[in-house]
Amino acid sequence: MTSRVDEILGYYGSDHPGVLKNLRWMMETGTLAGTGKFVILPVDQGFEHGPARSFAKNPSGYDPHYHYQLAIDAGCNAYAAPLGFLEAGAREFAGKIPTILKLNNSDGLFSPEDPKPAVTGCVDDALRLGCAAIGFTIYPGSCDRNEMYMELRELAEDAKSAGLVVVVWSYPRGSGISKAGESAIDVVAYAAQIAAQLGAHIIKVKPPTDHIEQDAARKVYEAEGVDVSTLPARVRHVKQAAFGGRRIVIFSGGAAKGTEELLEEIRGLHEGGGFGSIIGRNSFQRPKEEGMELLKTVMEIYKS
Amino acid sequence: MTSRVDEILGYYGSDHPGVLKNLRWMMETGTLAGTGKFVILPVDQGFEHGPARSFAKNPSGYDPHYHYQLAIDAGCNAYAAPLGFLEAGAREFAGKIPTILKLNNSDGLFSPEDPKPAVTGCVDDALRLGCAAIGFTIYPGSCDRNEMYMELRELAEDAKSAGLVVVVWSYPRGSGISKAGESAIDVVAYAAQIAAQLGAHIIKVKPPTDHIEQDAARKVYEAEGVDVSTLPARVRHVKQAAFGGRRIVIFSGGAAKGTEELLEEIRGLHEGGGFGSIIGRNSFQRPKEEGMELLKTVMEIYKS
Amino acid sequence: MTSRVDEILGYYGSDHPGVLKNLRWMMETGTLAGTGKFVILPVDQGFEHGPARSFAKNPSGYDPHYHYQLAIDAGCNAYAAPLGFLEAGAREFAGKIPTILKLNNSDGLFSPEDPKPAVTGCVDDALRLGCAAIGFTIYPGSCDRNEMYMELRELAEDAKSAGLVVVVWSYPRGSGISKAGESAIDVVAYAAQIAAQLGAHIIKVKPPTDHIEQDAARKVYEAEGVDVSTLPARVRHVKQAAFGGRRIVIFSGGAAKGTEELLEEIRGLHEGGGFGSIIGRNSFQRPKEEGMELLKTVMEIYKS
Amino acid sequence: MTSRVDEILGYYGSDHPGVLKNLRWMMETGTLAGTGKFVILPVDQGFEHGPARSFAKNPSGYDPHYHYQLAIDAGCNAYAAPLGFLEAGAREFAGKIPTILKLNNSDGLFSPEDPKPAVTGCVDDALRLGCAAIGFTIYPGSCDRNEMYMELRELAEDAKSAGLVVVVWSYPRGSGISKAGESAIDVVAYAAQIAAQLGAHIIKVKPPTDHIEQDAARKVYEAEGVDVSTLPARVRHVKQAAFGGRRIVIFSGGAAKGTEELLEEIRGLHEGGGFGSIIGRNSFQRPKEEGMELLKTVMEIYKS
Amino acid sequence: MTSRVDEILGYYGSDHPGVLKNLRWMMETGTLAGTGKFVILPVDQGFEHGPARSFAKNPSGYDPHYHYQLAIDAGCNAYAAPLGFLEAGAREFAGKIPTILKLNNSDGLFSPEDPKPAVTGCVDDALRLGCAAIGFTIYPGSCDRNEMYMELRELAEDAKSAGLVVVVWSYPRGSGISKAGESAIDVVAYAAQIAAQLGAHIIKVKPPTDHIEQDAARKVYEAEGVDVSTLPARVRHVKQAAFGGRRIVIFSGGAAKGTEELLEEIRGLHEGGGFGSIIGRNSFQRPKEEGMELLKTVMEIYKS
Repeated sequence: MTSRVDEILGYYGSDHPGVLKNLRWMMETGTLAGTGKFVILPVDQGFEHGPARSFAKNPSGYDPHYHYQLAIDAGCNAYAAPLGFLEAGAREFAGKIPTILKLNNSDGLFSPEDPKPAVTGCVDDALRLGCAAIGFTIYPGSCDRNEMYMELRELAEDAKSAGLVVVVWSYPRGSGISKAGESAIDVVAYAAQIAAQLGAHIIKVKPPTDHIEQDAARKVYEAEGVDVSTLPARVRHVKQAAFGGRRIVIFSGGAAKGTEELLEEIRGLHEGGGFGSIIGRNSFQRPKEEGMELLKTVMEIYKS
Repeated sequence: MTSRVDEILGYYGSDHPGVLKNLRWMMETGTLAGTGKFVILPVDQGFEHGPARSFAKNPSGYDPHYHYQLAIDAGCNAYAAPLGFLEAGAREFAGKIPTILKLNNSDGLFSPEDPKPAVTGCVDDALRLGCAAIGFTIYPGSCDRNEMYMELRELAEDAKSAGLVVVVWSYPRGSGISKAGESAIDVVAYAAQIAAQLGAHIIKVKPPTDHIEQDAARKVYEAEGVDVSTLPARVRHVKQAAFGGRRIVIFSGGAAKGTEELLEEIRGLHEGGGFGSIIGRNSFQRPKEEGMELLKTVMEIYKS
Repeated sequence: MTSRVDEILGYYGSDHPGVLKNLRWMMETGTLAGTGKFVILPVDQGFEHGPARSFAKNPSGYDPHYHYQLAIDAGCNAYAAPLGFLEAGAREFAGKIPTILKLNNSDGLFSPEDPKPAVTGCVDDALRLGCAAIGFTIYPGSCDRNEMYMELRELAEDAKSAGLVVVVWSYPRGSGISKAGESAIDVVAYAAQIAAQLGAHIIKVKPPTDHIEQDAARKVYEAEGVDVSTLPARVRHVKQAAFGGRRIVIFSGGAAKGTEELLEEIRGLHEGGGFGSIIGRNSFQRPKEEGMELLKTVMEIYKS
Repeated sequence: MTSRVDEILGYYGSDHPGVLKNLRWMMETGTLAGTGKFVILPVDQGFEHGPARSFAKNPSGYDPHYHYQLAIDAGCNAYAAPLGFLEAGAREFAGKIPTILKLNNSDGLFSPEDPKPAVTGCVDDALRLGCAAIGFTIYPGSCDRNEMYMELRELAEDAKSAGLVVVVWSYPRGSGISKAGESAIDVVAYAAQIAAQLGAHIIKVKPPTDHIEQDAARKVYEAEGVDVSTLPARVRHVKQAAFGGRRIVIFSGGAAKGTEELLEEIRGLHEGGGFGSIIGRNSFQRPKEEGMELLKTVMEIYKS
Repeated sequence: MTSRVDEILGYYGSDHPGVLKNLRWMMETGTLAGTGKFVILPVDQGFEHGPARSFAKNPSGYDPHYHYQLAIDAGCNAYAAPLGFLEAGAREFAGKIPTILKLNNSDGLFSPEDPKPAVTGCVDDALRLGCAAIGFTIYPGSCDRNEMYMELRELAEDAKSAGLVVVVWSYPRGSGISKAGESAIDVVAYAAQIAAQLGAHIIKVKPPTDHIEQDAARKVYEAEGVDVSTLPARVRHVKQAAFGGRRIVIFSGGAAKGTEELLEEIRGLHEGGGFGSIIGRNSFQRPKEEGMELLKTVMEIYKS
């Protein structure tokens, strides 16, 4: 009988075995090993929001080693961070947990309406740091979206030929859409489709709301009676948009919120068949024990 | 006696045999094999218009395998799609039908007046996916037209040296021309000429109307009595503009429309000597049997 | 139900879809299309033995077009030849039959005991000539074998990344082994293993005799009771040596011989599960009708 | 005694013999062979002005072969065209006449004040098409002039190392100068200097008028009494600006005009020592016999 | 017992030994050898402010050799300058003191609100000049910040693979922040984090004031009670922001000021655990003996 992990690997028939090796590594790591589900710890807030806003609540987080250890101790599938954070711990934690090198980042000292991150690393960096994957953020809806798509295209080509998994954060944002539109179901589904068409192996989107942003889309959702009334239904629709379930789609935890609210959302994501969650601020901005407990509770949901 | 296929291949004397091999593959595939005519299935709407608007009517279309199989079962000459859709089926369908990797795409979450798609793949991708051709869209009339021409130039150079056919979607659009001008006969003929001069092997344009957009052109059309009164006459003129018939020119089906209206248009394209049609939404946004029936009826027209 | 062709393609999971496309093209061409069996026409004798020795018997063979047409008319899966012969017909026959560019050749004007052919073409040549595959000869047993293995390695790497099939002629010869050893079962099985280990997709060896060349091997064959008593048994053993049947192994026709003798051998190869034959001199050194009849009879055996 | 052709080749002492070979080929071709004079047929209007405006008057011109044959039959030194037009006839006319691949072009569907053509071909294209030269247009006075200079620099470097002649169309245009300034004597002389400094072998400018565009220049022209009163005097001054006669300077025929008016201008260019003319629309927009007669009359003037 | 130098080298576990060699060279040079502290002499004012503004006060400074000798005689760890200054003395002073090639510079003849220096050298230059490190300035807060980050990324990748240390001047400036914000504690800490995340080995920032620039940051500083009341406290916070002390952070001397004021600041930096200072104008714009005395006094503070 084909295991769930092998079934998922079977979706990636155009990729060479080097990519499958790293994808399997991620799916055979941590508490969720073998389930085909993911809980990933990302820590790029130091770059994105500044160090004090990110780490002052739990000052252990200033130390790059803290996050490696947190991801391992909590049983995560992988740990994602920008170049500097990985460089500062890659030797000590080499091979202990799959890492994802985040290859583009924005800082908060200049905030244009249409975001366009800087490319801050490359595939050779990911190889020398022993990473399993590269991560890249695209902002559909930004006037600079095409530059990001084209940067991603080149990095993804390099990554695939080097056997690295390509993880795409697909976050609609910018002058093309409204604030509510950033997590609207039609926009999130579209964002998943764009990432998949650009060749992503793993796609990260926001949990979608029942708002519909684009008039042309609303007509179709209504005419065809696409069910977007509940979070599970919306997750199912997003998976459909990601090649009928043939691509791994995981969900962000979003802004820091109450624990119960977060867990409720995770339950909806799981019920809809989501492949997992990426949980950053909600885990490392608490004391380590609390953060680990939260991550473990999330994993329990995905194992159920 | 030289077959029609060999006659057409004879127009491409500057291309090396590797290109001719793939051009022959396309012309010797499907229901129209050997006729020198084309019916191609393109599916890039998931990227261009979003997944629900593209596939909700016929949800089988969310699955990338569906379109490969539809193109094969309907007897198409080739199937065209962006990177992700081809990656998701290239192993399973390797060699079963010629594929065209669409190398640039625009999404609908940001819509500037002057379109400029992102380059989303490269010739090495086309080789590893076993494609017969690359596809590329240019938008003459856009302020960014030259960037597209230059991207096409580089990709076409790579494609020709790798033995791949170059298919160019030449769609006038942007602040340089009016909405009616996008399918005006002078503009469509000009768009065919530009694609041919840029080195396209196969040129895709819209069925032209009898509108004339540019004053300088109108004077000539009137002075020389160029017949643009009927669709067949206009198709003949577009072929003339594509190096006097020495380049393959095929026509889009345009926005979804009624079946009879579409077939009437196809009859006009065929009467004027058009090399064929690319039919996307009108085929995959219906139940499979209906879509196949439509495609087969179109092929019957081109075989007549 | 998986077809035999798809089953065979399934053995090549490390290759990207571009390679599978060309492998499928070879398996879906000619009389044996769809059976997973091969009959290939190779014509490199002009270089190897000189033109008169090769073509004077049937002077039509001086013309490179003759062999293209013979391979097509006889229903072969592919035609293999050195650079010059393919260049001289690639445009006219582009895409009509899969071609294999033989990338190394020896001439007969200097004949060392230990053969080492010259590399006479490259993967870019194969692409511009529209080939489906490259062909390369290695001579295990020659003091220069490692040079050949290393040349093959580089060419195979290029070929695989360009989507071309790698066909290896693995012919033990040289000061390392006796004349009888060139077709000894232990040596032929070893030659198949070497080609497979070097990454060949298709391996061509000689029909093995029941001679055992190496003492160290003989002990094992006897101790383990490996059956090498009949040609079918030996073919089964060679397939075993080629990764337990996971690599395509085809057999040479050897020196020109009587028709019945040849067909008897083919029956033995087929009974043992051989994937097919490469038949050169026995086909093109006869009048065309006779050559075609022979090839067709061979194909009938492989279809039975 | 040194021939005029050798004298001219002597000006290009920094170029290697491959370039001289092609320059000699152009000067030893056609009616003006051996005179050191040039009449070149350029046909890029299909791209620049659209097909109907270019070819409807004489519909034979839609066929790319027509212009090759016209240039040969009229006895031109060379034929210049964009990629597509050369690709469509390069095999049939290989080696029959020197060709110049025009490497940048603008279309008329979008017309900004400051022109910046697209690069539409490269030196490898010129080599595979058997060209003698590349052609490139620069627009001094455009805000994008530096981009063009830099594109030219790279292409010229490639061309020279591949042994191709570099022909530069130097046409001042854009927001930096007035309409009258485009053919002002000071501006045309400056444009010739820029092209020469950028490494052009052959420079094409417009016949200069006696208008002086720049105040700073006028002071010098007046103070030094530079004679710009007649066309021959102005041509002498332009040659002076092109390294004191050490660079070949030829002149455009400009917009279609009356035959006698054109011939009068040619006589002035010849009297001033101009190296020749490029005549496009005035030759191919007439019936072939008329076009040939015109070209032959022009050649007679340059031979006198 | 691990020396302080080895302890610091231990922070750079992802770098290969070639980088560590150069980092050790810097830490084992001059008066502060072995202490893990740095005093570096930078001289890029000639490019940034113009020669007279930089050197007229102490005309010996026009001579590039002067600064090499000053750095050596004063016992500095390293000397930093742009390409031209190093080229003019690299042979004479080869190996006498570690040098840092400043790879980007702005001149004062055009001063946009948002600074973006030109890249003026490359890693190959640093290698041929025998440098220990490259230096690069980024301006977080400038609308062009991402271009700088991406230039730095590429240069840092090259530098690390060549075994060179990467020193980053991280100076917030531009339309994203106020003038006071350029040295605000939250902004300086953020600037240190950005440089660290981009892979800097040594980070140079301005001594931070107690101003807080960003509202979102102020909330956190107040809520978490981060102490920014004194310079030592702020230096401790900046070190925290630089990966919890795992990256070397040094401080600029800022604009020329009185000696006692400067030394007072140095004492604060030292008390907070700063790794050292870069002191340019305050040293070379005085007579040599005075400049040396100042530098030595600073070193005394860091040794205490």
